[in-house]
Amino acid sequence: MSEFVSFVSSGAGDPDLLTLKAVDRLQRADVVLFDDLASGAILSHAGPQAELIAVGKRARRPSVKQNHVSRLLVDHARTGARVVRLKSGDCGIFGRLEEEMIALDAAGIDYEIIPGVPSACAAAAAAGLPLTRRLSARRVQFVTGADVTGDLPEALNWAALADPGATTVVYMGKRTFPKLAAQLIAQGMSRDTPALLAQAVGHAEQKLQRSTIGALADQLAQACPDQPALILYGPLAGEAEDKHSTGA
Amino acid sequence: MSEFVSFVSSGAGDPDLLTLKAVDRLQRADVVLFDDLASGAILSHAGPQAELIAVGKRARRPSVKQNHVSRLLVDHARTGARVVRLKSGDCGIFGRLEEEMIALDAAGIDYEIIPGVPSACAAAAAAGLPLTRRLSARRVQFVTGADVTGDLPEALNWAALADPGATTVVYMGKRTFPKLAAQLIAQGMSRDTPALLAQAVGHAEQKLQRSTIGALADQLAQACPDQPALILYGPLAGEAEDKHSTGA
Repeated sequence: MSEFVSFVSSGAGDPDLLTLKAVDRLQRADVVLFDDLASGAILSHAGPQAELIAVGKRARRPSVKQNHVSRLLVDHARTGARVVRLKSGDCGIFGRLEEEMIALDAAGIDYEIIPGVPSACAAAAAAGLPLTRRLSARRVQFVTGADVTGDLPEALNWAALADPGATTVVYMGKRTFPKLAAQLIAQGMSRDTPALLAQAVGHAEQKLQRSTIGALADQLAQACPDQPALILYGPLAGEAEDKHSTGA
Repeated sequence: MSEFVSFVSSGAGDPDLLTLKAVDRLQRADVVLFDDLASGAILSHAGPQAELIAVGKRARRPSVKQNHVSRLLVDHARTGARVVRLKSGDCGIFGRLEEEMIALDAAGIDYEIIPGVPSACAAAAAAGLPLTRRLSARRVQFVTGADVTGDLPEALNWAALADPGATTVVYMGKRTFPKLAAQLIAQGMSRDTPALLAQAVGHAEQKLQRSTIGALADQLAQACPDQPALILYGPLAGEAEDKHSTGA
């Protein structure tokens, strides 16, 4: 009896952004362990035989939850079931993939990793903007705006993040963006640097709002919407056009 | 007669990493303009009616080629054909997407952008490594190692790239890596920082080689393999395991 787990990236909300390989693994799964953000229509690709188990984590929950997910993964794999661990976006980016890999390694259970469309790429495409530009945006970086407690991580590389020649995408950073923006501005980044707030990317309620780092920080300090969101900033964020979409 | 172009991300070599949306657009395309790296089995998703046009660019070709691609896009869209512009990886990352968008905007032709699996994510998954880690790799960055002449770009942010707390993926940077590594080491980054050379990711001849930035620079200064490649470096690159694959 083989013990095997497929880490499957679900892309960013839109079920048509699943890869063919992800669909194949969902169709053949006996058990699917899924996050809050990797649910909905995406799960309809799983067959009727599949047991669907929500293991959603949200910011500010205690990290013991992660151990629980790893335990579930191991226990289900041990039964010989085909286990899919579905994670939103690309599972290698801010998905805490490594902690689950370590648990499987320790249990001697093999696995595969199926990459996917990162939320940052989906947000940029939805907004009609590229993430890089010849000469003026030769670097693109993704960073987390929240540590396990939900606060802005202390040891971020502020100079790298304040580079006006990069495109930056902040994951899980809405609540902490006023603090982050203050750091960026203290590093010399202009308050007028274009920024884009991308909420519920790939979902029916998707909302794209163009701003600047200064104005967006002021706005989020007043009211922080509840939906999951990404914040993009840098020279290209100002080019965003809501008219283009990933849908058709 | 509608004039419309779909920018379609092809993922990284493995045709099973196409998204459902990408497959749909290929199936319905009248014309597919594709790059060298977005070809092979991926094109088999196009229907028999589709005209397939190679517009491959490789490093060191003069940039006038880009104008030619933009012209082809506009000319084909003007005929009312369903035009797919297929780009490898995620089309928003080092795909020179913006130049083609500008040409379409100027011609009044509408378009959509379909995001995909970036080559960096596919390479990391193939090597069995996550791109981020809680606490020690809170930032991931993608950078180009070649400007239009094929040289290392002059104005890169060396301090950001030499950050030992980030995972960095260098695109098109094999030939210039000895120069880049010298800059990183001059910035204080350890020669022993783990590095991974990922060649022909997602293709049958895929090759993953673990090294360090110092040793890899020495090696590439001696002999630079001809295949397209990515270089990943940072604390997580050392964790790579060849045993895990994206295949089944």
